[in-house]
Amino acid sequence: LFSGADLANLCNEAALLAARHNKEAVEEKDLEAAIERVIMGPEKKSRVMTKREKELTAIHEAGHAILSLLIPDVNPVTKVSIIPRGMAGGYTLTPPREDKAYHSKAELYGDIVVALGGRVSEELNFGDITTGAAHDLESATEIARKMVCDFGMSERLGNITLGKSHGPLFLGRDLVEEKNYSEATASIIDAEIKRIIDDCYSRAKKLIQENQEKLKLLANTLLEKEVLSGVEIRRMLGLTNPGISNANPPIQQS
Amino acid sequence: LFSGADLANLCNEAALLAARHNKEAVEEKDLEAAIERVIMGPEKKSRVMTKREKELTAIHEAGHAILSLLIPDVNPVTKVSIIPRGMAGGYTLTPPREDKAYHSKAELYGDIVVALGGRVSEELNFGDITTGAAHDLESATEIARKMVCDFGMSERLGNITLGKSHGPLFLGRDLVEEKNYSEATASIIDAEIKRIIDDCYSRAKKLIQENQEKLKLLANTLLEKEVLSGVEIRRMLGLTNPGISNANPPIQQS
Amino acid sequence: LFSGADLANLCNEAALLAARHNKEAVEEKDLEAAIERVIMGPEKKSRVMTKREKELTAIHEAGHAILSLLIPDVNPVTKVSIIPRGMAGGYTLTPPREDKAYHSKAELYGDIVVALGGRVSEELNFGDITTGAAHDLESATEIARKMVCDFGMSERLGNITLGKSHGPLFLGRDLVEEKNYSEATASIIDAEIKRIIDDCYSRAKKLIQENQEKLKLLANTLLEKEVLSGVEIRRMLGLTNPGISNANPPIQQS
Amino acid sequence: LFSGADLANLCNEAALLAARHNKEAVEEKDLEAAIERVIMGPEKKSRVMTKREKELTAIHEAGHAILSLLIPDVNPVTKVSIIPRGMAGGYTLTPPREDKAYHSKAELYGDIVVALGGRVSEELNFGDITTGAAHDLESATEIARKMVCDFGMSERLGNITLGKSHGPLFLGRDLVEEKNYSEATASIIDAEIKRIIDDCYSRAKKLIQENQEKLKLLANTLLEKEVLSGVEIRRMLGLTNPGISNANPPIQQS
Amino acid sequence: LFSGADLANLCNEAALLAARHNKEAVEEKDLEAAIERVIMGPEKKSRVMTKREKELTAIHEAGHAILSLLIPDVNPVTKVSIIPRGMAGGYTLTPPREDKAYHSKAELYGDIVVALGGRVSEELNFGDITTGAAHDLESATEIARKMVCDFGMSERLGNITLGKSHGPLFLGRDLVEEKNYSEATASIIDAEIKRIIDDCYSRAKKLIQENQEKLKLLANTLLEKEVLSGVEIRRMLGLTNPGISNANPPIQQS
Amino acid sequence: LFSGADLANLCNEAALLAARHNKEAVEEKDLEAAIERVIMGPEKKSRVMTKREKELTAIHEAGHAILSLLIPDVNPVTKVSIIPRGMAGGYTLTPPREDKAYHSKAELYGDIVVALGGRVSEELNFGDITTGAAHDLESATEIARKMVCDFGMSERLGNITLGKSHGPLFLGRDLVEEKNYSEATASIIDAEIKRIIDDCYSRAKKLIQENQEKLKLLANTLLEKEVLSGVEIRRMLGLTNPGISNANPPIQQS
Repeated sequence: LFSGADLANLCNEAALLAARHNKEAVEEKDLEAAIERVIMGPEKKSRVMTKREKELTAIHEAGHAILSLLIPDVNPVTKVSIIPRGMAGGYTLTPPREDKAYHSKAELYGDIVVALGGRVSEELNFGDITTGAAHDLESATEIARKMVCDFGMSERLGNITLGKSHGPLFLGRDLVEEKNYSEATASIIDAEIKRIIDDCYSRAKKLIQENQEKLKLLANTLLEKEVLSGVEIRRMLGLTNPGISNANPPIQQS
Repeated sequence: LFSGADLANLCNEAALLAARHNKEAVEEKDLEAAIERVIMGPEKKSRVMTKREKELTAIHEAGHAILSLLIPDVNPVTKVSIIPRGMAGGYTLTPPREDKAYHSKAELYGDIVVALGGRVSEELNFGDITTGAAHDLESATEIARKMVCDFGMSERLGNITLGKSHGPLFLGRDLVEEKNYSEATASIIDAEIKRIIDDCYSRAKKLIQENQEKLKLLANTLLEKEVLSGVEIRRMLGLTNPGISNANPPIQQS
Repeated sequence: LFSGADLANLCNEAALLAARHNKEAVEEKDLEAAIERVIMGPEKKSRVMTKREKELTAIHEAGHAILSLLIPDVNPVTKVSIIPRGMAGGYTLTPPREDKAYHSKAELYGDIVVALGGRVSEELNFGDITTGAAHDLESATEIARKMVCDFGMSERLGNITLGKSHGPLFLGRDLVEEKNYSEATASIIDAEIKRIIDDCYSRAKKLIQENQEKLKLLANTLLEKEVLSGVEIRRMLGLTNPGISNANPPIQQS
Repeated sequence: LFSGADLANLCNEAALLAARHNKEAVEEKDLEAAIERVIMGPEKKSRVMTKREKELTAIHEAGHAILSLLIPDVNPVTKVSIIPRGMAGGYTLTPPREDKAYHSKAELYGDIVVALGGRVSEELNFGDITTGAAHDLESATEIARKMVCDFGMSERLGNITLGKSHGPLFLGRDLVEEKNYSEATASIIDAEIKRIIDDCYSRAKKLIQENQEKLKLLANTLLEKEVLSGVEIRRMLGLTNPGISNANPPIQQS
Repeated sequence: LFSGADLANLCNEAALLAARHNKEAVEEKDLEAAIERVIMGPEKKSRVMTKREKELTAIHEAGHAILSLLIPDVNPVTKVSIIPRGMAGGYTLTPPREDKAYHSKAELYGDIVVALGGRVSEELNFGDITTGAAHDLESATEIARKMVCDFGMSERLGNITLGKSHGPLFLGRDLVEEKNYSEATASIIDAEIKRIIDDCYSRAKKLIQENQEKLKLLANTLLEKEVLSGVEIRRMLGLTNPGISNANPPIQQS
Repeated sequence: LFSGADLANLCNEAALLAARHNKEAVEEKDLEAAIERVIMGPEKKSRVMTKREKELTAIHEAGHAILSLLIPDVNPVTKVSIIPRGMAGGYTLTPPREDKAYHSKAELYGDIVVALGGRVSEELNFGDITTGAAHDLESATEIARKMVCDFGMSERLGNITLGKSHGPLFLGRDLVEEKNYSEATASIIDAEIKRIIDDCYSRAKKLIQENQEKLKLLANTLLEKEVLSGVEIRRMLGLTNPGISNANPPIQQS
């Protein structure tokens, strides 16, 4: 969700990158590089990671990438990198395939499963977990919270909205959120968020366990090449994205 | 609830639209178009929606429209559109028939049923639900909350008002709402809001299920024509609005 | 509770009304009209109400008026109108008979009964209730809350004051109220307020049911005449205000 | 607790009163009158009270006055008046006999009993209670709260202080009070305050019941004379203040 | 904990006192007097205390003083005075013997016992308690709270810190304290603080009861002399401070 | 986590120290000394500590140091000093061995164990505990809280994030933390933090008990020498740091 200032920033960055390569016009490739640069910070090739950190990063990112190709409804991986950028040791890009107005419940579940893929892979391959998943857990929790409080996607709580956020009137958009429900309801909200996250974690774990060989192949290739495109990954693993799960046409022409 | 600035904005917009069509005076049609423009944002004919999104929008809006013609006490549909406007993929207009000072409990229940019609139709026809109903759920919850807290329409809580809102004294009218009741009461408020929403959802579901053929006919016609007027919809579906449910004269002349 | 600015406003309004009728001095009648105008807004004779709304308003206001003549300790009606003013469809005036320093528990109970008279009459005569009673419920709740929290009139909570309001030091007199009690006490406060309101509602309902013929007569006359004075109403219904309930002299001269 | 500004105000008021009576210097009598004027507002001899209100005020103030002469440890009445001043219909003065650094638990209990004397007398003599005791209940509650939270005088809560008030750093001295204890403790605080108030109310009721004849004599004399001094009241009722309850010398010289 | 401004203030005060006595340089005695003056306010020899108040003050201060000589680990009394200063009727000085970086659990327990000595002595000798102990209870509660929340000295709550205070960023150092724990934990904190205070109160009571003769001797001497030094008190009572309780050397040289 | 200003400060300090020793360039040793100076304040050689305080400090710091050499995954000690600096009586330095992007659960557990080493050593050797561990407990609690709320490392609470901190938008980064969970969850968070701290405390206690001889040797040497380097300590105690606990290579090349 880019603001006007972000977009201006993006364009300038892309123009700069194009100019640096003596191009006369900005190409899609420049814009893509600019997006990564603006979101993740510039690459830090000079930063030295230990072998263990490299391995951990490779396994973590491979977890995200492989799940984005295994489950329906989510956006498939287009690029994975284990070259450090900003605070992150690596990253996996899964941009939206189309400009969507709606997101289905199945899709949001899928997004959480992908977000948890890094932590799951660490747990299964290292027997220990790290702080590297902190941002993933934050995203997953945020999606689950919105499903429960904003989108009426918890059967237990029903088709209501819970909490009221105050927009530009106050100190920053997301800053002030009014808790307009009881402690009893707050307790159910917590339980529902946990239930969703637990379900998605189990699903992620099962899928990673079933595809351990592919995960290791991807991680090892990453350790060697550092960056892989979505096309390369699909070809290597022999995976095609399942697309939208519910494909039967809902409206039959009479 | 338009402010003075809104009204000025509306008039200018209507004058502009009239001028664009070389009219000498603003007609009702221009004002109507201006209202849609100001509330929903300009049409985005250029935005490409996927076939699935188009279908989903058609089913969703048809759900609102059909319920507004099936239940008494509510304002009937005057226009449905699936041309994207602003953030919304489509919209259904149900303006008030008359300048009312009071709203009855039956009427408010009806408004909630209509608001839930989009979500219900999605669920019945796609087997999945989407984020597209977020704003509808917010409206429905807000009406239910007012019934319980402001209008004394919950038998369990009785003829009292709960909470106190502070007007123009503080940072924006709706911003500050004082919780002047106990947690025990807050818990009952939540339960009453949920009960109302659940009741209305059941009623919406039953009505849509009984009128599935009409819903699909309306949705398919929308996919074809993109915009339909209330008159066209009534004629196509053979429905007339039931009007006020309680028609027996309350005051008999002695 | 008029502020200085309110009073200045009132006087100007009264002078204006007197001038409009070519009087040389402001009469009590002008002041009375000015008070109604300042509190309720100007009359809206042009506003078209549906027949049903007119009937509902007549029944609602008749409920207030008749109760103010049936129960002791309260201020009797001096005027009823169903000509729309400002936001209200109609109104009933019950100004205090004398400049009182104290209000007894019996009197406050009576005030709540009168405030609930509109809602009760709607329920008994239309079988539905409306948002028109929102302001009445707010007044009734506010009186009940003060009885419990400020006046020590709940036997269960005893002769204490609960909560502390901060005056002109902060953002507007009624804005900041410190909750200086526990949740357990908050829960009893809620229960006590509800008990008082429920008692008064039952009493209002019983009285209206016993006087249904008089209520309908008053409502029908209102539909015809639109405005009635307290004297006209008493004469028509054959009611005299019971006055102070407890008339036995408390201090016997020894 | 007068501020510097209050004292300046007091002195000017006293000088004014002295000047008005053509005195060359301020006498104690002028200062006393000035204090009443500053605290209670000027006398409102013009304000018309109903006979019932006069009686109620007389009974109410007589209740305070008589208790201040019946129980030990408290400051005895020096003046009672039923001439309206400011918002109050009447008042009873009980200034401290000496400049004290400490207040004993027995003394604080006594102060609460005296504060509740007005309400008790109303209840016993009118069978109804009024809003006239609101300020008394506020004082009584405030003393009880300090006994429990600041002075360690609740055996159940022990020798601790509860809550922390922030002085001149923030918006007015008494405005901000930090709740630094649990809900469970808050609940015990409420129970302890209620227990103290209930005990004192019972004690006040018993004493007034035992002295009903004296109370009526005092009230009737007040109705006749409007103002009585402490000396007149003691002479009339034949009461002498019991003084400090615990008179045995705590320190025996060895 | 003196601020820079306090220290400057202290030095000026000491210089003034030295100058008033025609000294050429500030002596330790002047600095000591200045400290008392700055902390407690100037002496109020003119203020008349009742005999009872004098006795109460003497007993109260004697309670503090005697406990500071009876228990190990605390700072022994250096001066007791019953000449009123500022708001206090008297005071007991117990300055730290050395510049310490750490305070042991035993030492903090001892400080609470000494702080409660005044209230205990009042209770045992007058059979009533007064508001004079309010500041002592506040100190005792504050120490107990820090033991529980900051120093990990509650076995039930363990080696954690509870709450987070925000320093100079906000409105005064101690003003804002974030409650970062649950109600359940808040309830245990309250119970632990009460347990510590109750234990210390019992210990203070037992010690005072065992030393009643000495307490009365000290109080009576105070009534006569008004001010006593620590050396005079020790000589009179035959007490020597027990010093650090745990004297066995913890580290044996191998 | 040094800010830009901190770094500038550090460099200037290092340059100053180098200049003071007539060096032409800043050496690593100068930078190290500068870091200690900036974080801990300048040495206070003049401050006189009692023998007991010296012993306590030596035992406390020896506890931290020895644990950092006994458990895997943590950063080993590089320097211990018992020369007072700023507020602290002594300190133990354990700088990170490498620039890490991730921290494993095992590593964070280890950090808590080391932080608790000072308190444990005091308890085992003095039979009393002191306020000297306050900062250690704060660090330990903070790490445990982050494990539970930010890093999804509590199995009971699962892979979610709890609470939301607001960054530079508001009054200082760490100042405002939104509690977006229920009381029930808050209670589990507290229990989980306590469980982690209790586990680590037990582990620290067992290790110190098993290495009491080494601890005393280190403490006594510290009392004598005041400062010891990590190399000296390892040599003296014959300890080598266990390094990363989980050394088996997670990714086997296929």
